Amino acid sequence: MYIGVDLGGTSIKIGIVDEEGNIVVKGSVPTRTKAGYETIVKDMAELINTLLSDINITINEIKSIGIGAPGAVDNKNGIVKHLENIPMRNAPVRDEMNKYFDVPVYIDNDANCAALGEFYALDDKEIKCFVAITLGTGVGSGIIIDKKIYTGFNGVAGEFGHTSIDKNGIECKCGRKGCWENYASATGLIRESEKSAFEHPDSLLAKLIADNGGKSNGKIPFDAAKADDKIAVKVVNNYIENVSVGLVNVINILRPEIIVLGGGISYEGEYILNPIKDYVYQHVYAKECTEKTDIRIAKLRNDAGIIGAALLGK
Amino acid sequence: MYIGVDLGGTSIKIGIVDEEGNIVVKGSVPTRTKAGYETIVKDMAELINTLLSDINITINEIKSIGIGAPGAVDNKNGIVKHLENIPMRNAPVRDEMNKYFDVPVYIDNDANCAALGEFYALDDKEIKCFVAITLGTGVGSGIIIDKKIYTGFNGVAGEFGHTSIDKNGIECKCGRKGCWENYASATGLIRESEKSAFEHPDSLLAKLIADNGGKSNGKIPFDAAKADDKIAVKVVNNYIENVSVGLVNVINILRPEIIVLGGGISYEGEYILNPIKDYVYQHVYAKECTEKTDIRIAKLRNDAGIIGAALLGK
Repeated sequence: MYIGVDLGGTSIKIGIVDEEGNIVVKGSVPTRTKAGYETIVKDMAELINTLLSDINITINEIKSIGIGAPGAVDNKNGIVKHLENIPMRNAPVRDEMNKYFDVPVYIDNDANCAALGEFYALDDKEIKCFVAITLGTGVGSGIIIDKKIYTGFNGVAGEFGHTSIDKNGIECKCGRKGCWENYASATGLIRESEKSAFEHPDSLLAKLIADNGGKSNGKIPFDAAKADDKIAVKVVNNYIENVSVGLVNVINILRPEIIVLGGGISYEGEYILNPIKDYVYQHVYAKECTEKTDIRIAKLRNDAGIIGAALLGK
Repeated sequence: MYIGVDLGGTSIKIGIVDEEGNIVVKGSVPTRTKAGYETIVKDMAELINTLLSDINITINEIKSIGIGAPGAVDNKNGIVKHLENIPMRNAPVRDEMNKYFDVPVYIDNDANCAALGEFYALDDKEIKCFVAITLGTGVGSGIIIDKKIYTGFNGVAGEFGHTSIDKNGIECKCGRKGCWENYASATGLIRESEKSAFEHPDSLLAKLIADNGGKSNGKIPFDAAKADDKIAVKVVNNYIENVSVGLVNVINILRPEIIVLGGGISYEGEYILNPIKDYVYQHVYAKECTEKTDIRIAKLRNDAGIIGAALLGK
């Protein structure tokens, strides 16, 4: 058995995972973001002990603990270097966790862990390259080459969310302009939905947003578009094109056999998948004479991070 | 010894290369682009025989023949699938070459071959990831991971030139909008130079272009910029920024230890390298806490394609 920890800006989710990648038991605690890494690791350790006793096993039955962290990590040395939403810098999280449990501890980026989880959930694992894209608050991405997370030489590869698709576009919090994340994330979709609703106050989109206290979410524009609201259809079509532009970039660079789309937006399923496929297959380089990358909706939903983190030790 | 063939739209360049990657002898013939693949391979075979007799050896002393082709290839089956500037489709080039020489024949994309050549020219080959970018008529790129060309599942990975950096930008001949190639190639630089010269007929840039028969080339804007022509400085700075935007994308995705810049534009050396480094290191993701990718000018110049093609068999 393995333990997987999904460290998020809101909560720490932990699961005990079996050899086949199934979650046996899971739980969560709020992330005390400002309390420092020692407190955060202590909270993780306490939840791990609770989960172990829940299923009547001890740490001796655990092969390893894997932690997925939302930012840049040094996976060789088990250090969390820099997180986006938790003030943790150069924190020796592996050593800290080893104060509680004498088992191997692995750390990687959360999107890389999600990609590894989705990879192990495939029926066919004999593939050369696999990419998982998470369309959530941001755009996360993880690359699996030859069955391993591809991390580059310094541990932080795979940031498709921070590749510019519009060199004069929206300013990104990373300091660049036009990063894919600003257009393909739920945050980007919400921004454009609210903007369109403001410009078209008589639209169904505007009504649904008003009913939701004046704020959109990642589902409202799809609900309005499915009800044939023209304004929402335009917002959604534009969003789907922006997702697709980045996916064509992914394919032209890496030519993975399979790309899976995860995160909250992916719950729209075929409603987004079919137009994305149409766009991508029309625009990919050398489309006339090359095999197609298969594009799918991710399987594991919210559990991908826990399962992937657990399988870091496999 | 190995034979390397660099198939270009204008000429076929061939070299006999030793174990260390040095060219022992080389030659070239014009590419009869419209004559069909059988004629093109026949021309290659004749030049190979000439070069062999030039240094008094026979084909028995050759371990393999490698061919770099400017487009999409099926490297597993030795087929040239689609070239940009030569009307060759699904051509069984390996089988055709084997009609002349009974040695192993390898085929790959020309930018991939150039990357392999530059990789073998490094002092330190113990690196995880290496990328070579060719700033020429187009923008070619090749990725070396774990000492091998990374080709993706269908042989055509590594097309950074056809990743969009401006989703509403210039129409690319590949069918997309805003591909990096349209901004970072010599062709893109020439286009912008001629446009600026037209708008500013009193500039030194305009004078140098007029002296060149009304056409710019990849060197003229740099010559004018070095002579402090403000219009040329603006063109060159904008070009350098466009090259850099794409390089930040490369780094955020792959985190290679080293990127080398080749092609005609790279002959400007530190004049372009220094401002590119300044821009890239300021804009790369998580710059505060990650080791820098080393960016260099390529070593092998025009010979990279021949040497890399030859080393496909190594």
